[in-house]
Amino acid sequence: MHTMQINVERHRGRRASLSERLPEGLVILPTARVRNRSNDTDYHFRYDSSFYYLTGFHEPEAVLVMQLGEQAKSTLFCQPKNELREIWEGFLYGPAAAREQFGFDEAYAIDQLDAKLIELIAGQPRLYFPIGFDEQWDRRIMGLVQQVQARARNGKPAPIEFVDVRAAVAEMRLFKDDSEVAIMREAGRISSEAHIRAMQTTRAGQFEYEVEAELLYHFYKNGSRYPAYGSIVASGANATCLHYHENNRRMHDGDLLLIDAGCELHGYAADITRTFPVSGRFSGPQKDIYQLVLAAMEASFEQVRPGASRIAYHDASVRTLTQGLLDLGIFKGTVDGLIESEAYKQFYMHGTGHWLGLDVHDVGEYKIDGHWRSLEAGMALTVEPGLYFRPLLPDSPSHYVEVPEAFLHIGVRIEDDLVVTRDGHENLTALTPKTVADIEATMARQAG
Amino acid sequence: MHTMQINVERHRGRRASLSERLPEGLVILPTARVRNRSNDTDYHFRYDSSFYYLTGFHEPEAVLVMQLGEQAKSTLFCQPKNELREIWEGFLYGPAAAREQFGFDEAYAIDQLDAKLIELIAGQPRLYFPIGFDEQWDRRIMGLVQQVQARARNGKPAPIEFVDVRAAVAEMRLFKDDSEVAIMREAGRISSEAHIRAMQTTRAGQFEYEVEAELLYHFYKNGSRYPAYGSIVASGANATCLHYHENNRRMHDGDLLLIDAGCELHGYAADITRTFPVSGRFSGPQKDIYQLVLAAMEASFEQVRPGASRIAYHDASVRTLTQGLLDLGIFKGTVDGLIESEAYKQFYMHGTGHWLGLDVHDVGEYKIDGHWRSLEAGMALTVEPGLYFRPLLPDSPSHYVEVPEAFLHIGVRIEDDLVVTRDGHENLTALTPKTVADIEATMARQAG
Amino acid sequence: MHTMQINVERHRGRRASLSERLPEGLVILPTARVRNRSNDTDYHFRYDSSFYYLTGFHEPEAVLVMQLGEQAKSTLFCQPKNELREIWEGFLYGPAAAREQFGFDEAYAIDQLDAKLIELIAGQPRLYFPIGFDEQWDRRIMGLVQQVQARARNGKPAPIEFVDVRAAVAEMRLFKDDSEVAIMREAGRISSEAHIRAMQTTRAGQFEYEVEAELLYHFYKNGSRYPAYGSIVASGANATCLHYHENNRRMHDGDLLLIDAGCELHGYAADITRTFPVSGRFSGPQKDIYQLVLAAMEASFEQVRPGASRIAYHDASVRTLTQGLLDLGIFKGTVDGLIESEAYKQFYMHGTGHWLGLDVHDVGEYKIDGHWRSLEAGMALTVEPGLYFRPLLPDSPSHYVEVPEAFLHIGVRIEDDLVVTRDGHENLTALTPKTVADIEATMARQAG
Amino acid sequence: MHTMQINVERHRGRRASLSERLPEGLVILPTARVRNRSNDTDYHFRYDSSFYYLTGFHEPEAVLVMQLGEQAKSTLFCQPKNELREIWEGFLYGPAAAREQFGFDEAYAIDQLDAKLIELIAGQPRLYFPIGFDEQWDRRIMGLVQQVQARARNGKPAPIEFVDVRAAVAEMRLFKDDSEVAIMREAGRISSEAHIRAMQTTRAGQFEYEVEAELLYHFYKNGSRYPAYGSIVASGANATCLHYHENNRRMHDGDLLLIDAGCELHGYAADITRTFPVSGRFSGPQKDIYQLVLAAMEASFEQVRPGASRIAYHDASVRTLTQGLLDLGIFKGTVDGLIESEAYKQFYMHGTGHWLGLDVHDVGEYKIDGHWRSLEAGMALTVEPGLYFRPLLPDSPSHYVEVPEAFLHIGVRIEDDLVVTRDGHENLTALTPKTVADIEATMARQAG
Ligand SMILES: [Mn+2]
Ligand SMILES: [Mn+2]
Ligand SMILES: [Mn+2]
Ligand SMILES: [Mn+2]
Repeated sequence: MHTMQINVERHRGRRASLSERLPEGLVILPTARVRNRSNDTDYHFRYDSSFYYLTGFHEPEAVLVMQLGEQAKSTLFCQPKNELREIWEGFLYGPAAAREQFGFDEAYAIDQLDAKLIELIAGQPRLYFPIGFDEQWDRRIMGLVQQVQARARNGKPAPIEFVDVRAAVAEMRLFKDDSEVAIMREAGRISSEAHIRAMQTTRAGQFEYEVEAELLYHFYKNGSRYPAYGSIVASGANATCLHYHENNRRMHDGDLLLIDAGCELHGYAADITRTFPVSGRFSGPQKDIYQLVLAAMEASFEQVRPGASRIAYHDASVRTLTQGLLDLGIFKGTVDGLIESEAYKQFYMHGTGHWLGLDVHDVGEYKIDGHWRSLEAGMALTVEPGLYFRPLLPDSPSHYVEVPEAFLHIGVRIEDDLVVTRDGHENLTALTPKTVADIEATMARQAG
Repeated sequence: MHTMQINVERHRGRRASLSERLPEGLVILPTARVRNRSNDTDYHFRYDSSFYYLTGFHEPEAVLVMQLGEQAKSTLFCQPKNELREIWEGFLYGPAAAREQFGFDEAYAIDQLDAKLIELIAGQPRLYFPIGFDEQWDRRIMGLVQQVQARARNGKPAPIEFVDVRAAVAEMRLFKDDSEVAIMREAGRISSEAHIRAMQTTRAGQFEYEVEAELLYHFYKNGSRYPAYGSIVASGANATCLHYHENNRRMHDGDLLLIDAGCELHGYAADITRTFPVSGRFSGPQKDIYQLVLAAMEASFEQVRPGASRIAYHDASVRTLTQGLLDLGIFKGTVDGLIESEAYKQFYMHGTGHWLGLDVHDVGEYKIDGHWRSLEAGMALTVEPGLYFRPLLPDSPSHYVEVPEAFLHIGVRIEDDLVVTRDGHENLTALTPKTVADIEATMARQAG
Repeated sequence: MHTMQINVERHRGRRASLSERLPEGLVILPTARVRNRSNDTDYHFRYDSSFYYLTGFHEPEAVLVMQLGEQAKSTLFCQPKNELREIWEGFLYGPAAAREQFGFDEAYAIDQLDAKLIELIAGQPRLYFPIGFDEQWDRRIMGLVQQVQARARNGKPAPIEFVDVRAAVAEMRLFKDDSEVAIMREAGRISSEAHIRAMQTTRAGQFEYEVEAELLYHFYKNGSRYPAYGSIVASGANATCLHYHENNRRMHDGDLLLIDAGCELHGYAADITRTFPVSGRFSGPQKDIYQLVLAAMEASFEQVRPGASRIAYHDASVRTLTQGLLDLGIFKGTVDGLIESEAYKQFYMHGTGHWLGLDVHDVGEYKIDGHWRSLEAGMALTVEPGLYFRPLLPDSPSHYVEVPEAFLHIGVRIEDDLVVTRDGHENLTALTPKTVADIEATMARQAG
Repeated sequence: MHTMQINVERHRGRRASLSERLPEGLVILPTARVRNRSNDTDYHFRYDSSFYYLTGFHEPEAVLVMQLGEQAKSTLFCQPKNELREIWEGFLYGPAAAREQFGFDEAYAIDQLDAKLIELIAGQPRLYFPIGFDEQWDRRIMGLVQQVQARARNGKPAPIEFVDVRAAVAEMRLFKDDSEVAIMREAGRISSEAHIRAMQTTRAGQFEYEVEAELLYHFYKNGSRYPAYGSIVASGANATCLHYHENNRRMHDGDLLLIDAGCELHGYAADITRTFPVSGRFSGPQKDIYQLVLAAMEASFEQVRPGASRIAYHDASVRTLTQGLLDLGIFKGTVDGLIESEAYKQFYMHGTGHWLGLDVHDVGEYKIDGHWRSLEAGMALTVEPGLYFRPLLPDSPSHYVEVPEAFLHIGVRIEDDLVVTRDGHENLTALTPKTVADIEATMARQAG
C-alpha cells in the first residue's frame, strides 16, 4: 500500500542527519531479501526497516550507498526499468524515476553495484554496513574489499574498519518525528477498531482463528496488508502460553480470550493486547485478576514521561502486581521482600514493554553504558503488564507457590501503545475498551 | 491448522514407496527454514512440501533421514521437548511423541543430527538430499562427508554420489491419492465461495485491496491461514499485467476486475481466476472477449483426460483464441498460419496451466526425454486461458497488430482446477460462477 | 621442470578411457589452487594429480571439461595469452597453443568458464566433479546448476546427480602404464643415489637437516624441484616418532639415523627409507633389530605378485617380526597367539605399504566391497616394515611388555618401491644399499 | 629450525605495545593454515608473520586472543598435548607448556576456542582480526558475534566495530629492533655466501636449476629450510622476464645469468639479486649495461638515510639510468624530458625496492595520507635497479624506441638489502660481489 505521499524532504533529512553522525566512510545498506515460502512462491516482500526509514523506497533488490563527509552523496541501486518484464511482474520505478521521485543524488541499475562499489570503496577509511547480518552480503562486500586491496599498491588503500551501520540508524529511529507519530496514531486507531470488532463477533463454539479472521479483515480493509507480528488469539489455558500462535482451539463459554494483535501501516507497527470473556461477562476470579493487571497498567502509565527511567514503568507494574497477589492471598510476606526475591516471576515472567516503531520490537538501546536510559519525547513504547497462572512444573524453584484452583489457567495481559510527549505521553490505542464495564458494554453491542 | 487426523499409515506408505524407487543410499530431507520478516519477527512458518508429503510433520527445525534398502528405517530429528521454553514459544511434540504419533522408526533431538549423520553416512554409496537448494545445507552435509572421508582409511568409505532427492518425490507427488484429492476438493470449495463473496461485495469506489480482504477473510474463517500465493486483484488496465499485486487502485464502474486467488488448505493449493465487471454488467466488447476466453476454456476441458498429451489442452485454447481473434477482425490471415507464426502471443503470452498440489506451481516433469508426457489419472492441473490487450510498445515485433480502441486495456483470464480421473476429469472449482449470465446473476444477489 | 616430451596421444587415450567408464554426463575437473605461503608469496604450484594425469597440463588456473557419450569432447579452460603480463609473470600457453599442443578439442580463456558451463550443464543428467573437496568450487558449480534450474521451464533440465569424479580416475591411476613406470624408475634411481650420498656424507656432530640438505641437493640437481613429501631425517630416539620432521637435532656417534625421503619427478613420487649408523658401524642390538626388519621385508617381497591378496605382504611382515621378537626374548608365547592378540602393534603400529604414483600415498581402493583386493600387474606400492622401541606410556594397554634397555629408543624402517609385473615385481629402488654389509661398505667410501 | 632461544620478554613487549596502540576491544589473530599440496601431503607449514611476530609460536592451529585495556591479557589457543598422537605426528607443546615457555597469561586447547570467544566477545565495543583475509575465519567469527547478539537482550552487547588488526601490527613490524636486525644480518650473510657459491659453480652446459640447487643447498646447510620466495635463475633472454621461475634452460657461454634469491631465517627474508656472465667474463655491451645499473644503485644508496623521502632512492635510480641510456645513444632528448615522459619505463618498469622483514615484500604503508613517508631508523628495504631489453611488441606505445641489436635480450638487476640506521644505512648483503672486477675475480676462483 504505497498510497502515501512520498515525503522526499523527510527522507533526505534523515540521510543528512545520519551523515552528520558518522565519521568519514561509505555506507552500504541493502534492503531485505525476498523470502521464499515454497517452491517458486515467495512471502509478501517486506523492505528492511532501516533502509526504508532512510529512503522511503519499497521495491526489493535495492541498495542505498552513502558517501559521507564534505561531499556527501546518496546513491540508490535498484532494479532496472524493463517494460517487457513489467508485463509479467508489475511496475518498477527504475533508476531514473527513482532518483527523481525519492530524491537521490544518483541512481543506477542493481547489476552495476559491484563495479561501482569497487570504485567507491577505494580510499575509504571505513565501511558501514549491516555486518554480521547476512552471510552472503558479508562475503560479497568483503570480496569487493579484497579486490580493492589487491589493487591498492601505490593506489587508494582499502578500508580497514567495518562498522555495523544499524546501530547509528537505530538511535535515530528511536525518536519518532511528527510524521511517524501520525502514522502510528492511525495504525493504533485501525487496530483498536479491529479489537472492538473481535469483541463484538466472538461467540462460544467458534475456533480462535475465526476471531483472528475478523481482526485481519479489518486491518486489510483499511489498507494494512500484513499484521505487525503473528497474532495471538488464545482462549482458556492457551492464554498462559506467552507466544501461543496455533489459534485453532474451539472456544467455550467461561473462557477468557487473550488477543495480542496489531496492524502494520506504512511499515509502522501497532501492538495491542486485550483479554475478555468469551461469554461477554467476567467471572469473579477473572475480574479479580483482570482488575489487578489493569491497576498495574495505570501505575505504569504514570511513569511514562520525559526524564523517568526506562525501567520505572516496569517497576511500577511489578510493585502493583506483587501487592495485589499479596492482597489475594496468593503470596505471603512483604511487598519489598517479594520484589527482592522476584517472587512475581512465577506469574509475571516478562517485561512491561518494548520500543515500538518500524519494528514491533523496535530498535534502539535500552541501556547506555550498562545503565537504563531515561525516557525522552518522541520515544514510542508499549505498556503490557500481565498475569499467568499455570500449574507448578515438577522442577519449579522451591519458592514457587501453589496456585489456587480458582485462578488456575487464567492468563490476562493488557497492552497499549504510548508515545512520550513533552509533558507526559499520548496513548495511541486508548480507543480500545479496557475497563471491565467498557468491555462488557462493547460486547453487548454485537456487530451487525 | 493441524486439526486433521494425522494419517500415519499414509505417510508411512509414501516413505516405503520412495524407498522402493531409490537405489541404495541415505535420504536427508530437511524441512524449510523459518524465514525472517523484519528484525526479530518471522513470517508464518511453511514446512517444505516434500518433507511434509513424506512425514505429515509441521514443526520447523526438523529433518527426515531415511536408510534405504533391506533394512529401511525412517528417523525424525526435531526440536527437543522443553516445557519451560514452551511457556514462551508454544507446544512442541519432542522426539518421543513425534516418533509415536507420526510413525517413525526412530526420533532424536535436532542437536544430535550431525553426530548421528556421521555414523549413518559412512558406508553409504550415495546421498539423496535437496542438493543445490540451500547453500548452508550443502556446506553442512558436504562437511560431514569430508569428516567421513577423513576417517575412511580401512574403514567405511564415504559416498561418492549425491542425488537431488526432490526429483523422485516430485514424481510421486504428481499423482494425487484420494486423501489429497479430498483436501483439494475442499480447498476448491472454500476458494469458490470466496470468489462468490468477492463478486457480491465489489463496489465502484472501493480499493482493490478491499476485495482482497473479503477473499482472505473467507479463507481464514474456513481455517486457511495463508493464501496459496499472492492474490491478484487487478481492475481496469491492471488486469493486463500478468502478476499485478499492488492491489491498491480505486475501482470504477466500467472496469473489469480480474481476481486470481486461492486458499491453501492443509498445505494444498487452490488456484482460481475470475474476471467480472465492477458494475455487475459486462459491456459489449468486454463480453466479446470474455466469451471468447470462456470458449477456449471449454475447448481445453475436452483435452483433459487420460492419454491426452500434456500440451493438447494448451493447443486447444490457442486455436480457439486465434480463431476468435480472426472472427473479431483483430487478426488477418488463416488460423493455421497465425498459429504457425505465434501471432497469438501478442495477446496470450502464457501457458494454459500448470500442475497443482502442495505447491500452486506443483512439482513434476512436464516432459519425458524432451517429449510432452501424457495425462494420467491422479494428476491435478489448472486450465487458465486469457487475453490481454495492451498498447503496442515502441519496439514490439513487426508482426504485432494495432489494438482496436474498444478492446484496449481489457484483460480477461478464467481459471479452474481439474484433477484427471479414469475417464476424464473432475472440476474442483466448478462452483464458481463462470458464464456471463451466472456472473451477472450472482452479482445481483448482493451479500447480506 | 617440463622438459619431457608431452605425449599427447597418451593423455588423449586416458580421457577416452575415462569417457568409456562413465555413464552420460559432464566432467568438470579443476587443477589445484595456487596456495599462499605468506603475504603475497605463494608456495611452488603443484597441479592436481588427476587433472595432470588426464591432461599433462601444468599451469595453474585451468579446468578440464569433458562432454561424455557419443559426441565426447574435451575442453580446456586456461589463462589467456597476454604478452604484457608475461613480461612480469612468465610464459603462458594460452588457449590456442594449449589446444594444439595438448590435444584438446576446444580451449577457452578461464574467464569464460561460467558462461560456457551454463550452456554445457543444461540437459546433462549428471555432473562429475571433485564434489566435497573444495568449498568454493562446490558453491560455484552448484550456483551454476541453480541458474540452469531457473531457466529450465520448458527448456533443458538441470542435472540431478552429482558424482565425485575422483573415484573413477583413481581406479585408472592405480594401474601404471609403461611411460609411468619409466618415470617412476627414474625417480627411484635419483632417490637411491641421494640416499647413497646421505650415507657417505653423514658425520657425527652435524645437524639432521644437513643430511637433508644433501638429499634435496641431489634431487634438485637432477631436475626434481620438490620432494614427494616432507623428508624425515630422524636420529637417535627421533626415529621412534613416525612422522618426525623437525630434523634439527645434532647427531652423535652411536645413533641410528632413519631417513624417509624420495623425490618427485614429473609428478611421480619415489618413497625410500633407510636406517644406518651415524658412525658407519651398527652396534649389536642395532644389528639385531635391523636384520629382523630386513628379514620381514624379504618375506613381504615374496607376496608382491599378481594374484596375491593386497594384505598378504603385510601379514608376512607381521609374522616375521613377531617370530623375531619371540626369538629375541621380548615377547613370550606363540607366534599365532601373539598375532591374534596384535601384540606386535606395540612395536610395529603402521601398515607395510601403500599405493605409489602421482601421489606418495596414491589413490585407488584397497578393498572392494569390504574385501582386500588382489594385486595386479601395473600396481605400484611400497614395502616398509619397521620396529620402534619407545618407553611404556603410563596408560599403555595392559598386555604391553617392558622394553629391554638395550633396544630402548631404537627405531628402524626399511622401505622400497615395487611395481607388480606379470610374473612378480620390479624393485624400483633396489640400487639403495640395504644389507648391513652393503651399508657399512657404502659408508666407508666417503664422498669426495 | 627453532633452535633460537625464545625471547619471551621481547614478544611480551610487542603484545604490550600493540595493546597500547589500540582502543578498547578484543584481538583475535589466528596463525596461518596448513596448506594442502596434493592428496594427503601438505606444504611445509609457515606460520602467519604477524602472529609469529607477537608470539614466537610456530605450531599450526593456534590463535592469539588479546583483551585490551586496563586488564590486558594474552591468551593462546593451541593443539592439545597428546602423547599417543605425537608418536605419529611429532612433538607438540600443548597449552600448559606453551603458556609457560612463551609467556602467555592463559592458554587453552584450540577446540575450546569458540566457547571461550563467545564469553570474551560479549561486551566488547570492537573486534580486531584479519577481517577479509580468510572467508572461513570471517564466517566463523561473525557467526560467534551473531550468537552474542542473540543473547544480548538486557545482557552484554555485541561489538559493532570490526577492525583489520593487520594494519596496526604492520606499522610495528615496519620498525625492526636489534634482535630482528641481527637475524636479518645473518640471513644476508648466508644468502651472500650462496650467491658466491653460485658464481663459482656455474658452467656453460648446465641447466639453470642446477645453479638453483647450489643456492638452496647452501641455505639448507645453514638451517634455512625454505627460500624467502621462489628463486629466479634466468639466463640469456629469460633475464628480461621479471618473475621467470621455470629455471629449466640450458646455459651457454655468452649468456648473462640473473639470480634473484634469498633465504628465510627464523622467518626473516633476505633478497639478493646478482647478474653475472656464465663464461666468467662480461662482454662489452653486457659491461656497459651492468655498470650503468651499478651506478644507479650507488646513486640510490645515497638516498637511504633517515629523513629522506621513501621515493627519493627510486628517483635517483631513474635519473641515473635515464642519463646513461642517453649517453649510450639509446634515448634522444633531455634527461628531464625523458623522466617527465617516463621513457625509462620501456627498460625499467619496476620500482627500486620494497620493505623487507618477516615477509620479502614486507608490510607497512609506503604513503601516509597519500604522500610518500620519510625513511626512519629501523626500516629495512631493498635497493634493486635494473634494465631489461626486450624486442618491441607490435602494440607498444608510440614513444618506445628501437632496441640496438647489441643490447637485445640483455637483462640486468642488482639488489642489496639495507636497514636504515641513525646516520645512514647498513648494507646487510654487502658481502656479495658486485663490481665487474669482483665478480670476475670470484668466478675465477672456482669452487673445490
Ligand atoms: Mn508487545
Ligand atoms: Mn494458475
Ligand atoms: Mn612410505
Ligand atoms: Mn626484491
